[in-house]
Amino acid sequence: MQLVFSFDFPHLAAPKELRDLLGGKGANLAEMTSVLGLPVPPGFTISTEACREYLRAGWSDELDSQVLEALVVLEAEMEKKLGDLADPLLVSVRSGAKYSMPGMMDTVLNLGLNDQSVLGLAKQTDDFRFAYDSYRRFIHMYSRIVLGIPGDEFDRLFEAAKQLSNSVSDSDVPTELLKYLVDSYKELVLRVNGEPFPQDPMLQLRGAIMAVFNSWNGSRAIAYRQREGIPNDLGTAVNVQAMVFGNRDDNSGTGVGFTRDPATGAKGAYGDFLVNAQGEDVVAGVRNTEPLNRLKDRFPELYSELMIIFARLESHYRDMCDTEFTIEQGKLWMLQTRVGKRTGVAALKMAVDMTKESEISLTKHEALLRITGDHLDQVLHPQFATKRHSVLTKGLGASPGAAVGKVYFSADEAVSASRRGEKVILVRKETSPDDVHGMLASEGILTTRGGLVSHAAVVARGWGKPAVVGADAIRIVGRSFVAFGKTVIEGDEISIDGSTGEVVIGSVRLTAATPPPEFQLVLSWADEVRKNKVKVRANADTGADALLARSFGAEGIGLCRTEHMFLDDSRLPIMRRMILAEGAEEEEAALQELRVAQRSDFLEILRVMDGLPVTVRLLDPPLHEFLPNMEELAIKQATVGLTDEETRLYQAARLWQETNPMLGTRGVRLGVIKPGLYAMQVKALMEAAAICLKEKKKPIIEIMIPLTVTKDELALATTWVRNAIEEIGVVGIDVAVGTMIETPRAALRADELAESAEFFSFGTNDLTQMTFGFSRDDVEGKLMATYIDQGLLPANPFKTIDPTGVGELVRIAVERGRKTRPNLKVGICGEHGGDPASVDLFVKAGLDYVSCSSFRVPIARLAVAQSLIRGGELTAID
Amino acid sequence: MQLVFSFDFPHLAAPKELRDLLGGKGANLAEMTSVLGLPVPPGFTISTEACREYLRAGWSDELDSQVLEALVVLEAEMEKKLGDLADPLLVSVRSGAKYSMPGMMDTVLNLGLNDQSVLGLAKQTDDFRFAYDSYRRFIHMYSRIVLGIPGDEFDRLFEAAKQLSNSVSDSDVPTELLKYLVDSYKELVLRVNGEPFPQDPMLQLRGAIMAVFNSWNGSRAIAYRQREGIPNDLGTAVNVQAMVFGNRDDNSGTGVGFTRDPATGAKGAYGDFLVNAQGEDVVAGVRNTEPLNRLKDRFPELYSELMIIFARLESHYRDMCDTEFTIEQGKLWMLQTRVGKRTGVAALKMAVDMTKESEISLTKHEALLRITGDHLDQVLHPQFATKRHSVLTKGLGASPGAAVGKVYFSADEAVSASRRGEKVILVRKETSPDDVHGMLASEGILTTRGGLVSHAAVVARGWGKPAVVGADAIRIVGRSFVAFGKTVIEGDEISIDGSTGEVVIGSVRLTAATPPPEFQLVLSWADEVRKNKVKVRANADTGADALLARSFGAEGIGLCRTEHMFLDDSRLPIMRRMILAEGAEEEEAALQELRVAQRSDFLEILRVMDGLPVTVRLLDPPLHEFLPNMEELAIKQATVGLTDEETRLYQAARLWQETNPMLGTRGVRLGVIKPGLYAMQVKALMEAAAICLKEKKKPIIEIMIPLTVTKDELALATTWVRNAIEEIGVVGIDVAVGTMIETPRAALRADELAESAEFFSFGTNDLTQMTFGFSRDDVEGKLMATYIDQGLLPANPFKTIDPTGVGELVRIAVERGRKTRPNLKVGICGEHGGDPASVDLFVKAGLDYVSCSSFRVPIARLAVAQSLIRGGELTAID
Repeated sequence: MQLVFSFDFPHLAAPKELRDLLGGKGANLAEMTSVLGLPVPPGFTISTEACREYLRAGWSDELDSQVLEALVVLEAEMEKKLGDLADPLLVSVRSGAKYSMPGMMDTVLNLGLNDQSVLGLAKQTDDFRFAYDSYRRFIHMYSRIVLGIPGDEFDRLFEAAKQLSNSVSDSDVPTELLKYLVDSYKELVLRVNGEPFPQDPMLQLRGAIMAVFNSWNGSRAIAYRQREGIPNDLGTAVNVQAMVFGNRDDNSGTGVGFTRDPATGAKGAYGDFLVNAQGEDVVAGVRNTEPLNRLKDRFPELYSELMIIFARLESHYRDMCDTEFTIEQGKLWMLQTRVGKRTGVAALKMAVDMTKESEISLTKHEALLRITGDHLDQVLHPQFATKRHSVLTKGLGASPGAAVGKVYFSADEAVSASRRGEKVILVRKETSPDDVHGMLASEGILTTRGGLVSHAAVVARGWGKPAVVGADAIRIVGRSFVAFGKTVIEGDEISIDGSTGEVVIGSVRLTAATPPPEFQLVLSWADEVRKNKVKVRANADTGADALLARSFGAEGIGLCRTEHMFLDDSRLPIMRRMILAEGAEEEEAALQELRVAQRSDFLEILRVMDGLPVTVRLLDPPLHEFLPNMEELAIKQATVGLTDEETRLYQAARLWQETNPMLGTRGVRLGVIKPGLYAMQVKALMEAAAICLKEKKKPIIEIMIPLTVTKDELALATTWVRNAIEEIGVVGIDVAVGTMIETPRAALRADELAESAEFFSFGTNDLTQMTFGFSRDDVEGKLMATYIDQGLLPANPFKTIDPTGVGELVRIAVERGRKTRPNLKVGICGEHGGDPASVDLFVKAGLDYVSCSSFRVPIARLAVAQSLIRGGELTAID
Repeated sequence: MQLVFSFDFPHLAAPKELRDLLGGKGANLAEMTSVLGLPVPPGFTISTEACREYLRAGWSDELDSQVLEALVVLEAEMEKKLGDLADPLLVSVRSGAKYSMPGMMDTVLNLGLNDQSVLGLAKQTDDFRFAYDSYRRFIHMYSRIVLGIPGDEFDRLFEAAKQLSNSVSDSDVPTELLKYLVDSYKELVLRVNGEPFPQDPMLQLRGAIMAVFNSWNGSRAIAYRQREGIPNDLGTAVNVQAMVFGNRDDNSGTGVGFTRDPATGAKGAYGDFLVNAQGEDVVAGVRNTEPLNRLKDRFPELYSELMIIFARLESHYRDMCDTEFTIEQGKLWMLQTRVGKRTGVAALKMAVDMTKESEISLTKHEALLRITGDHLDQVLHPQFATKRHSVLTKGLGASPGAAVGKVYFSADEAVSASRRGEKVILVRKETSPDDVHGMLASEGILTTRGGLVSHAAVVARGWGKPAVVGADAIRIVGRSFVAFGKTVIEGDEISIDGSTGEVVIGSVRLTAATPPPEFQLVLSWADEVRKNKVKVRANADTGADALLARSFGAEGIGLCRTEHMFLDDSRLPIMRRMILAEGAEEEEAALQELRVAQRSDFLEILRVMDGLPVTVRLLDPPLHEFLPNMEELAIKQATVGLTDEETRLYQAARLWQETNPMLGTRGVRLGVIKPGLYAMQVKALMEAAAICLKEKKKPIIEIMIPLTVTKDELALATTWVRNAIEEIGVVGIDVAVGTMIETPRAALRADELAESAEFFSFGTNDLTQMTFGFSRDDVEGKLMATYIDQGLLPANPFKTIDPTGVGELVRIAVERGRKTRPNLKVGICGEHGGDPASVDLFVKAGLDYVSCSSFRVPIARLAVAQSLIRGGELTAID
């Protein structure tokens, strides 16, 4: 089996498609060499197959001989020999897996130098200084990367040489001292490693290749793969390439270039270069780089050659490319290229621009696939402008966007500070409905407990306000918090990033959140792809929410929760009266009061959503959520005593207390116990609809029963709803009655539920909780991080739907439900509705719509379109 | 379509097999008439098909004409006419569904009498008294059953007649007054119903038939069907039969007879009869009946005729039969027969006897199918000896058997009372490990909260001690309890039935619990059927449990929970030290202490189970179960203050507190957080195994990881277990490592889990909780009853496995698991392992064993055998 391929190997397919075999870097090097004919220093790629074989069975004779053979060919082409005393060949050795992966061995340059060949290099280049500088760099790099010797030991020696020679910059160190440095480096290696620095270049080469292979199974690489869902059995390729020297002289240099600006998307080359330097110098930032366009003045011919290459790369890859290049004594060499990463603004601009450029002529479908949900998040929310901040701790990124403000520890303090004109970050252990005014007054929210669907997270996402939750390294102590020995006092400034979960002490500069003009255009393309296929709705509980939802392009409300309406200060006492009611009469009186309040809630929403469907979920949470905290009342009873009212509440709270409220008396079960409740809600809704109709508006209503598990239960609940609708008797409106699918049993028995349900809406949050047995309140903020870090879970299943467990239940339910009722409408209204990977699964499962928080609606619109495009069978958009 | 069949209709199949069409009663009447040629009064059966058609579309001309036609044939055969003025035909009308069903219309006798025909009857029988007595009985019965007029109004009038005539017994009322009674009855009907009592016999007949049909949809019948899982669309048949009169004279009579004793199983006829009476008199108990064998003296010929009939019935039905018969003026008539109900003792005796009787020659397979789990429960536990007690309230029957004792409200009081020689019923709101000594000292346990898997229920079942749980009508007030206005004070006697959930004030006589000799024999047959097919194990946590398990024939331990070992008074402080440990060292020290304790726990069990497999489940419950109650500590802190130790415990309890502990950090998740814990347990276990081996015993060990959801999690946990086994390095023992399947995801991803797991054990309790989203702590004692009463659930899914939801997950997991690992051993260790209907599902799903509490092991042995026999493909047992 062929394990080693020269860059000009005549592959049957375009090499850039062979990333599985050659890794990303190797594939692009071969593409540039053999397809584009660009000036690439010759070399060869040792395949991922060779890596897998090595990791299984060790270094084989077969591999050894193929590497040697490829080396011989390289030597012939370069007319130099590795380790040659007169004119040695030097090579670089780089890793290159299919996916770019931090944590793997990076690069060893100048391999092939030893005590003899360094002299050959010196003679051949007529530059002792250059030769020894290269040698000492090589020993340092090889020892650190391949032999695992800490780099700072070498740095210390180099600093000593600089001090000795009174040098200001690295290049000031005299040649004589460089020779000394080489000796002291070698001594260091012998001392630490117990063996001398390898002098045999073949030994060096094998060592470097094996180091790359082994780094595939380094703990950082494994952790990264687990986090990113990259399979563990891919292996990495290794690229061995003849060295060219940007540090040869002042007619040399090295640089990094983008074919257009990765930050703004602006056309025209963008990048940095350094004269007389090797690649690592650019990255290390030890010397100040010059902008790429200054190359035009210094090396006008090379510059125009580079621009021609950039244009070729762009039209060949049909995308913005990121390159590394080196100039050696006036000759340009391309060392690497790949499709470049970009910001959200740039992604939007490039995607739109490239549809108009004849050299690239992207279709709109292709353009849509170039944009990610993260890109849209970036343009919708402020971001940290730099990466140069030291992170105090990381919680869960619960609501995207970055915020800076002074910390306050109570909602009231947050409101006062905000009134004084301060920007506030509200820091709480966890939030409750009592904190809502403080959250509203803050720039961002930080909690030390709770998961991605905790109160803080859900409320913040609803408002598009940055939030970091479950930052459990932080301990709140009175009016300050402590983490890792650092204390932050009330009024101190911190910065949070609700995408990454980062918490930073002090103020980090933020980018503005102003969607560029391409934003709406790209989304309109996405909408065209979705037209008559898959809708996007928003979750919204109030008229204001509904307005926001429409502004983001929601095509309806997929989930209108009715419980928040009851938590309002003015409603809670009525709700409690209903719960405490001692007779049917008292209960009915409380229900009637609630009905009036609910009617006006619904009216607001229906007015805003005129002509678009609104899915109302009947009351879902357990009744104890409307009662005061048991523990507080217990303490009060034991100390100062309770009022009569409090005693009654305490008794009710005891009565309704549950060991596992998530699996308790909630949803339709509540309806079974208090059937008047659901009837009241439906009547209020229908009365609101009647008012809308009178106003010549078009209300479209879907009523949803939560937490169903049996068909008889759903049939019974549907009867209550239908009876209440009939009782109000609104003419000229059809109401669909359906059910949430949020228990595993509901999914499995979807065929039976579809006998009563006219639509399904997946409650994927609860479905995930029950399928995994993971309480989001308990597991998400704590255990989940451990699970993901240790690779026990590929991702947080509350963020991205578990494709093989929960996802299978979704597929089963859709299939079985439609078997009973072929025209069954099916949607999803869990948090997953705004996650692109999850949306893809939902589209493939045949859902009619996804519903998510308003700020995720643009992302969902894009994600649905992308899923449809990838699924094929679409006609192109004009 | 033929809707009406005379009893002698020439059916193609044996009529007794036609219960679907004819109902149970009709099928047996036809069998006696046309197959056995027994003296049955002629008549006809209106089919269940006719009922279904009637309920769908009302009374049809077709049905009317078929009934009329059958009546004409009956009149011809009897040589009498319905409503005839000279010699009227009278008939009885009875319901008869496929399954015997309380709540349906029972019997109307003497139909056909009216103001004219009563005179004909009088003349023909030359007995005015008899005729008018029959007429007044008919009006009363018809009015109550068909017209729905309350019976006590008639009773009041009859009492008045008795007073007027100074009569002692019913038969003393003079004929003249009977005529008056008939008039006053008719007036009552006219007044209540607004219409006169129907005089047209055909109208009477149609009315009675329709009343039977309609009673199919009566609320009590519907509720009964829902509870018993009888389909709603079967309908009932109606039997119309010529009347014979046991109340004709002293040469007449009526009786109920069993072909052998239904209470003991003793051979020989058993029953009661009454001279000069109609059937209802026997049932009503108004007159004292005579034992059946007294018939021998009074009517020797008839008695021997009856004995011949009984013998024919037994050999024909190959079972004990229950009959009703009537003697009219010296002629014997059979009115009804069916296979009779029996006690547990009788069931065992009859099944064994009948295998030896040549007339019946039951096979052992057939004999096994004659015995139910309830029969075995009856012989294993004491029962209420009579049904004559007034039930105060019903809780959940959580552990079978009845108990009588004085109530005590705390474990300590229960122990003291028991030491004084009193029999105790411990009454608690709910129990915790702190109550265990009191439970042990009690005859039975009664709790007012909790479900079938609450602490009280699980512990009681493990000991075979009667328990009623979740009796929520009872309110404990200090040292007394109150229910329905009645107060029971400490020391008062009560009786409880842990099968039915009944609670009775005072002492009810109990039957002894001594399994008859046939018990072991029948179980040995069951074992022969199971041999090499499906094993039965027990759940046992201690050496004493294990002894009990073996005594009941368990073939291994399917679930050894290790958490109870930690709750012991002497272990709890060590466990708490482990939880509170501030460094690895402190934690390790506590673990080492626990290891010593665990080793001796395991050693006891392994010694007892020598040669049989023991499945040890590593620690499962959340850590807060080992910490003190938060609320109590909070109150103490707010009042008298906490000690340092308590403060630490309070903080730990706060830290580990969970909103939904069922879905929290427990099972293998605990292992991920405290990996030393599982390693400690495995080491202790292997050390115990090593000691056993030295003692020349044969330990067989299976280690089980609880609550797995992903394959990587299981692979990791398996590594800990394997490493710990290797570290101890016991030679000569193979250890299987497997996993519980107790989350829906584990069932769905069983193929992946089987990569690491050598066996599966279904935790159907948790699987049911998560599949339904039902917390057993919260739902079972409260909502569940409402759900079953309202027909929203066919049965309590924690008692009988939900066949289409949870059952489907079981089937999926078995199939997928064995796809990966064809020889995967699969068992079940949830509470369902002792429930016959659930066992049937597990056997069909291909499980290798079921495991249940020791006292259920005999039932499981039987249930497995029954399932295998029903499944066919077995060779008979010798």
